[in-house]
Amino acid sequence: MSSSSTSKNQNSPQLRKDIIFNRWVIFSPARSKRPSDFKSKSSSSSSSNPTGVRCPFCIGNEHQCAPEIFRVPDNNPNWKIRVIENLYPALSRELADPVDETGSASSVLDGFGFHDVVIETPDHDVVLSDLEREGIGEVFVAYCDRILELGKRNSIKYVQVFKNHGAAAGASMSHSHSQMIALPIIPPSVSARLGSMKEYFDQTGKCSICEIQQEDLLIDSSTYFFSLVPYAASFPFEIWIVPRYHSAHFHELDAEKAADLGGLLKQMLRKISLQLNDPPFNFMIHTSPLHGDESELAYTHWFIQIVPQLIGTAGFELATGCYINPVFPEDAAKILREVNV
Amino acid sequence: MSSSSTSKNQNSPQLRKDIIFNRWVIFSPARSKRPSDFKSKSSSSSSSNPTGVRCPFCIGNEHQCAPEIFRVPDNNPNWKIRVIENLYPALSRELADPVDETGSASSVLDGFGFHDVVIETPDHDVVLSDLEREGIGEVFVAYCDRILELGKRNSIKYVQVFKNHGAAAGASMSHSHSQMIALPIIPPSVSARLGSMKEYFDQTGKCSICEIQQEDLLIDSSTYFFSLVPYAASFPFEIWIVPRYHSAHFHELDAEKAADLGGLLKQMLRKISLQLNDPPFNFMIHTSPLHGDESELAYTHWFIQIVPQLIGTAGFELATGCYINPVFPEDAAKILREVNV
Repeated sequence: MSSSSTSKNQNSPQLRKDIIFNRWVIFSPARSKRPSDFKSKSSSSSSSNPTGVRCPFCIGNEHQCAPEIFRVPDNNPNWKIRVIENLYPALSRELADPVDETGSASSVLDGFGFHDVVIETPDHDVVLSDLEREGIGEVFVAYCDRILELGKRNSIKYVQVFKNHGAAAGASMSHSHSQMIALPIIPPSVSARLGSMKEYFDQTGKCSICEIQQEDLLIDSSTYFFSLVPYAASFPFEIWIVPRYHSAHFHELDAEKAADLGGLLKQMLRKISLQLNDPPFNFMIHTSPLHGDESELAYTHWFIQIVPQLIGTAGFELATGCYINPVFPEDAAKILREVNV
Repeated sequence: MSSSSTSKNQNSPQLRKDIIFNRWVIFSPARSKRPSDFKSKSSSSSSSNPTGVRCPFCIGNEHQCAPEIFRVPDNNPNWKIRVIENLYPALSRELADPVDETGSASSVLDGFGFHDVVIETPDHDVVLSDLEREGIGEVFVAYCDRILELGKRNSIKYVQVFKNHGAAAGASMSHSHSQMIALPIIPPSVSARLGSMKEYFDQTGKCSICEIQQEDLLIDSSTYFFSLVPYAASFPFEIWIVPRYHSAHFHELDAEKAADLGGLLKQMLRKISLQLNDPPFNFMIHTSPLHGDESELAYTHWFIQIVPQLIGTAGFELATGCYINPVFPEDAAKILREVNV
């Protein structure tokens, strides 16, 4: 990737443009301690959520939850994964399917959509990174199955899969779970990402994610994936997991690749947990819209973004959309490469 | 403004497009308690910062601070306001002024810029809303004076003024202060806002902010300004203070208008403090770029955005740029109108 001249003076700030999300990030090392001294203040496990007995996500408490959509294995009381409706959904599946008005400039829409929860384990004390690679792979396959089902509706334009781990990262339940919100619109950051990747493709004939590898930013790799700290990471110790093969849609993942991805995700989560003192974190799957234009397939390429929550965002970030990152990506990548898990 | 059909079913979610920032917001009242029961969990005054004796922002401790830029009144040991350098600046004023390469597609820049702190009062126990309207007006005039000075450099494209109040809103010092970051780029959210306002102007011949008034969203007004909850507010109880007169640049404010603005800001801050249990908050001044194209003046219009920090943002917001707001703007406006200060 052409983002070449990474020569930097360790103590001088630098502005880098993230060419995937098309935004500037301010790297400002002098504001902070040494990169290797970065730790989370609040451990993700310090949470005031219900414990096993009273937790609705625990096995045996299924009746306390909103309706189930499916479980893995199917029809088995000893389930490993359950996909259920969110009891407090952000969007409503009860509303009428909106009529597809392509190009409509309407500024108000009924809040139709789906908001599901994926319970990743029946056991209250297990977190995602405790599962075997195949177990994490099954969670990914559950996401894919649900996206395929949701994608049968023309009115659903995009499905956002995300995980909030730890209260400070927005998790209201401590039992390991992730969420899926199926939207009747293409969200603003997705449009911006697609526009930016299209621009790169139009200029170079190449997919910007296929070109993203850079030796000093690489953390690790597996058969089908690699992990890196992006050149213009918005957050300290942010990690991306990227398919080595060109693929627009996450939901085309098969079971073999899902287990391989599970292994690499497990390693990255263990690395940030060890290095950063079990931080709260978010991960988000960045994929392509459903029912999109065929031409998008050439320049879009899905990936996973992992964000440890180490510093807050405030008025400046809210106002400008610029992030201030106190750790240079090369330094974060070196530290994460060397963490022994 | 054409955002017309605000008919809503109190319990159904709704998507609204913010035509100023060009982003969708999900209104999801069913996720939450009643709007009038919304309170901040952490009071903004619960902070572990140094108290008066050891606080470098207090009068008498000036020697503990980074260099002063100016004070109000000038050369007076009994100052009311001090504008100083930030001890831990995000950008460096020491770097060489970058050469203006208009249209350069470079993806890396030296971190040149200015990061200043405005100490709003010499007294540790006074917060901004304790000042008289004229006192708050003088803080606004200090912002303007500093922006005019920074704007003499062609390399500074935008100055972001913002205030973080309370630790949960990002304040690392409890002594009342605000910040100014002068940037060598136009930040992504500013570009998006300008693009969106230009589109509205091209379609209607009108400034979108001049057209923003809507009776059910209005909170209050003064001689030169009005305050409202925007139609597609991203955050619960978010407030905008808007000049009644068309004006692209905040820094053109005169002392009379500044005092009038001070009075209205004071009232809004007291209203959110009373209604929402002294919440942490941010405010941001959204203005127009320096040295911008003359044509921008017709469709850009500065305003202040006040955001009480009541709910966290997490993986979904990070990934999509969509916010989920549990309180409809009409409901927030009604409640805020009725708070007696």
